[in-house]
Amino acid sequence: MELGMVGLGRMGANMAERLLRGGHSVTGFDPNAEARKALEGKGAASADSLQALVQALPAPRVVWLMVPAGSITDDTVNTLLSLLSPGDTVIDGGNSNYNDTLRRAALYREHQLHYVDCGTSGGVWGLAEGYSMMIGGDEAVVKRLQPIFETLAPGKDAGWGRVGPVGSGHFTKMVHNGIEYGMMQAYAEGFSILEHKQEFGLDLAQIGQIWREGSVVRSWLLDLTTDALTKNPKMEGIAPYVADSGEGRWTVDEAIQLNVPAPVITLSLIARLRSRDTESFTDKLLASMRNEFGGHAIKKE
Amino acid sequence: MELGMVGLGRMGANMAERLLRGGHSVTGFDPNAEARKALEGKGAASADSLQALVQALPAPRVVWLMVPAGSITDDTVNTLLSLLSPGDTVIDGGNSNYNDTLRRAALYREHQLHYVDCGTSGGVWGLAEGYSMMIGGDEAVVKRLQPIFETLAPGKDAGWGRVGPVGSGHFTKMVHNGIEYGMMQAYAEGFSILEHKQEFGLDLAQIGQIWREGSVVRSWLLDLTTDALTKNPKMEGIAPYVADSGEGRWTVDEAIQLNVPAPVITLSLIARLRSRDTESFTDKLLASMRNEFGGHAIKKE
Amino acid sequence: MELGMVGLGRMGANMAERLLRGGHSVTGFDPNAEARKALEGKGAASADSLQALVQALPAPRVVWLMVPAGSITDDTVNTLLSLLSPGDTVIDGGNSNYNDTLRRAALYREHQLHYVDCGTSGGVWGLAEGYSMMIGGDEAVVKRLQPIFETLAPGKDAGWGRVGPVGSGHFTKMVHNGIEYGMMQAYAEGFSILEHKQEFGLDLAQIGQIWREGSVVRSWLLDLTTDALTKNPKMEGIAPYVADSGEGRWTVDEAIQLNVPAPVITLSLIARLRSRDTESFTDKLLASMRNEFGGHAIKKE
Amino acid sequence: MELGMVGLGRMGANMAERLLRGGHSVTGFDPNAEARKALEGKGAASADSLQALVQALPAPRVVWLMVPAGSITDDTVNTLLSLLSPGDTVIDGGNSNYNDTLRRAALYREHQLHYVDCGTSGGVWGLAEGYSMMIGGDEAVVKRLQPIFETLAPGKDAGWGRVGPVGSGHFTKMVHNGIEYGMMQAYAEGFSILEHKQEFGLDLAQIGQIWREGSVVRSWLLDLTTDALTKNPKMEGIAPYVADSGEGRWTVDEAIQLNVPAPVITLSLIARLRSRDTESFTDKLLASMRNEFGGHAIKKE
Repeated sequence: MELGMVGLGRMGANMAERLLRGGHSVTGFDPNAEARKALEGKGAASADSLQALVQALPAPRVVWLMVPAGSITDDTVNTLLSLLSPGDTVIDGGNSNYNDTLRRAALYREHQLHYVDCGTSGGVWGLAEGYSMMIGGDEAVVKRLQPIFETLAPGKDAGWGRVGPVGSGHFTKMVHNGIEYGMMQAYAEGFSILEHKQEFGLDLAQIGQIWREGSVVRSWLLDLTTDALTKNPKMEGIAPYVADSGEGRWTVDEAIQLNVPAPVITLSLIARLRSRDTESFTDKLLASMRNEFGGHAIKKE
Repeated sequence: MELGMVGLGRMGANMAERLLRGGHSVTGFDPNAEARKALEGKGAASADSLQALVQALPAPRVVWLMVPAGSITDDTVNTLLSLLSPGDTVIDGGNSNYNDTLRRAALYREHQLHYVDCGTSGGVWGLAEGYSMMIGGDEAVVKRLQPIFETLAPGKDAGWGRVGPVGSGHFTKMVHNGIEYGMMQAYAEGFSILEHKQEFGLDLAQIGQIWREGSVVRSWLLDLTTDALTKNPKMEGIAPYVADSGEGRWTVDEAIQLNVPAPVITLSLIARLRSRDTESFTDKLLASMRNEFGGHAIKKE
Repeated sequence: MELGMVGLGRMGANMAERLLRGGHSVTGFDPNAEARKALEGKGAASADSLQALVQALPAPRVVWLMVPAGSITDDTVNTLLSLLSPGDTVIDGGNSNYNDTLRRAALYREHQLHYVDCGTSGGVWGLAEGYSMMIGGDEAVVKRLQPIFETLAPGKDAGWGRVGPVGSGHFTKMVHNGIEYGMMQAYAEGFSILEHKQEFGLDLAQIGQIWREGSVVRSWLLDLTTDALTKNPKMEGIAPYVADSGEGRWTVDEAIQLNVPAPVITLSLIARLRSRDTESFTDKLLASMRNEFGGHAIKKE
Repeated sequence: MELGMVGLGRMGANMAERLLRGGHSVTGFDPNAEARKALEGKGAASADSLQALVQALPAPRVVWLMVPAGSITDDTVNTLLSLLSPGDTVIDGGNSNYNDTLRRAALYREHQLHYVDCGTSGGVWGLAEGYSMMIGGDEAVVKRLQPIFETLAPGKDAGWGRVGPVGSGHFTKMVHNGIEYGMMQAYAEGFSILEHKQEFGLDLAQIGQIWREGSVVRSWLLDLTTDALTKNPKMEGIAPYVADSGEGRWTVDEAIQLNVPAPVITLSLIARLRSRDTESFTDKLLASMRNEFGGHAIKKE
């Protein structure tokens, strides 16, 4: 198929490349000229504006967005709205909040434009291994895009699917990331316990390696964790600082709205917040309270 | 090699069978005559008492224990102590608390007997796929037992290893199960959020299937979860009651003793406790407190 | 002072009565005629519509809202907007979300109307003991209302104050309730542990009574908890079902937005969600997963 | 009454002083000569060894222990065992683990000695306000000691009581401290949320002051917290480092053993552990995992 790729960062460039390898025609746009040039080097066309991109594509157009969630997506979606023609389709493959997706899709519908949300997992490994894709949108529209998904996915019929109406793809990806937070935290806590049991002198990478075969906790995340532990067994030079990119927060918020108790996913997020709160007011106040009632010494800063 | 297998329940019988298939000679003991007979049918010898078992084995003897943790293991370990001769080896392949293992190993050492602990993961799938084994014990002793581990493991050099001195095998398995609790809870919470988002009409088994290929959360547990969701999408007929077999508790206890914050593993355990506390005194008292200060209605039982 | 009271439910009626006792003139409105009549019996005037209420009050008018948060508050606020005159003041004494308050106040400002938010704590005990009030609004406006707050508060200069600009009163009350959730849960868990230690045969009400004097955990909530335990030591007839009225959710949401780790307040909310999730899909799936990998029995429903 | 006080640290010295003020005769022992001298200055006798203490007391002797839990208590209890005579009584007023208490009491019983456990709350404020005391022991023995408890307590019949057999006093105090952890954490989280809402410019000490009167969260801990916030509103110079003295751990352990879900008490403990884990291996590994699968940047140390 022929499609436009908007956003040629780490994810977008890799996805474009995988599509090219699969025989699709890709025209790429990114404000960064070097990113466009790099993609050209891999056999794609490029456009230096959204307008140029739209003009370069045959109708009905297919434009895949791979841009950061939030205002950049909004700007791009709004600009495309004014450039596209009835029957054209935009696929948001980024990590948008599904509520934003519902809002944008409603706007597109008013203009006879199709809007599809594709929650995409796979990270930097997707280029080689394929992407896992949870897709929301009208059945007929998704069906038409099938060749794209088959190429991006790990296998023709594997690792992708339409999960429901528009919005449901991003919703499912949001929950996917919530689960990811919980799994990551579970592994990290476990390895930390092993690391602290100094009298046994455990080799964490070796243990990760053992668990990779036959154990109940084997997983792709364990494979990666074992790699990380092999390369840097003591985690030297790494700050105990864990970022989060929003999907964990949305999952927690959604769980509460749906009245689903989700302690583990929630605590995984809170643990990340705590990792960055190095001057915890909470803990300073606790130390101060202990001093007030019990005369317990306060550690000075 | 030639070895005795004590305990022919689900796990012990399967392990004996895998050893037989691998060319080892196994003499099995279980108080249950049917279990002994079933094993005989697979090519093993059997003994109707621990005494008979010990007599049937050539010195230096190797006895593998696959019995429930706690007092049954203690009884078996103590009886064997009086039957075995210096140089013989007992391998505890069950889910013993590593502190018990340290105690038992010290006792065995006094009698010139070898004690090896093998944390075993793999569940009912181990017979076909092999067991992941974390082994603690003296290096020379573990080396001598290598043919056994190579057969039980998923591969000759894969899925097993000596992780440290005696006790460290059960310690590592304990943490393994703690991680397992956290992962299970993360998946279950995530699928529950999906299930409650009724307006999207999501097919949980389909989503599990999508995630199995290419996604960051792919794992063997996800494979099994997807199977469960395929067979019974609404979890019909299943009580919301989750048992625990001890290793999660020990992990939580150990984390606290080592001053390692492990909120996710801990909350996974607490969630299981809560699943069984259907007449929660805590919640009744909370409802009662709300009534006291705010006049809020109490739901009658 | 002379003021109108909109909403004569449990809280509004009590506050009106405390104001009357303090020498203020109150005109009350409630759609329920009986509620109006009951207030008249205590010396207040009443109005059978918001329009009548506004007409009955002298300019500049003061109207206190004590209505359920959400759409009812929105309807009332919007109706009053069309009835009031520049210089009039509305005080929202209910549990509104501070974001709603900010929105409503901005609207009122456009019409030269004053908007004050008063987070009110005290529950059914406020009539006798006075209400704790956290007030947001312009300094001059709050100063003018001082006689009202002095009467409603436990003391002339105690238990009330302007904490900041409009919105800050409801924000502070929201956090107050978050803390309340955490404290309640801490007590309830503690008493539940005592209750489960059956070999000691502890008398929970007696223990609450002991703690009320001299202990570090003494509090008004403990007083009420002790009362509840005295009246119904076994919590008989009470369902383990804990409602929540929204402020806990908002606190959790706000904590996450502010990157403040708040595990205890968050878990208190989650515990309440769990109390109502008696058919937990999460727990059913966990039981099912345990069966898949380990062959563990599932409890039937 | 006449009694010996062993341990003249902060708590023991204050309790001895309160007993002296109440007309009791106290002989104090502490290895520290200055501590003994200070107590003499308040009207007590002193002894420079446990042996001297026992000799100085009339039979049947009453010895109150106020020494750190653990091995010091064990040493003292064992030494006294060899010095005391049948019918004498030892009261452990410290924060001993109730399991240790059960063990020590059984030993004393064999020697016809009485053992009483008194969980004591009140901290540095107990001297002036009285101590809250939860007492375990034989009814007749506790009855004989009544004058002591009446003097130490906030009131003759208030703030103390025999809660059950020996061990139950320390058990109840353990749970008391677990609750205290949860309450402290709830307040600290709440104030931290207020502190982070910078656009409202909230004065935390003022808010604490408002809540002290009429609010649902009023308590003695809130009084102290407000004092701390008044003295040091920004918690300047205080490290975010929160110690724990053991009772929280025991409460968590006991809750798990009793199958009582106690998420809030447990998370309060875990938050303290995290405050001291400034080089969190868990968080370093999480950052490393994010880099592995998503190429996310790692913050360098």
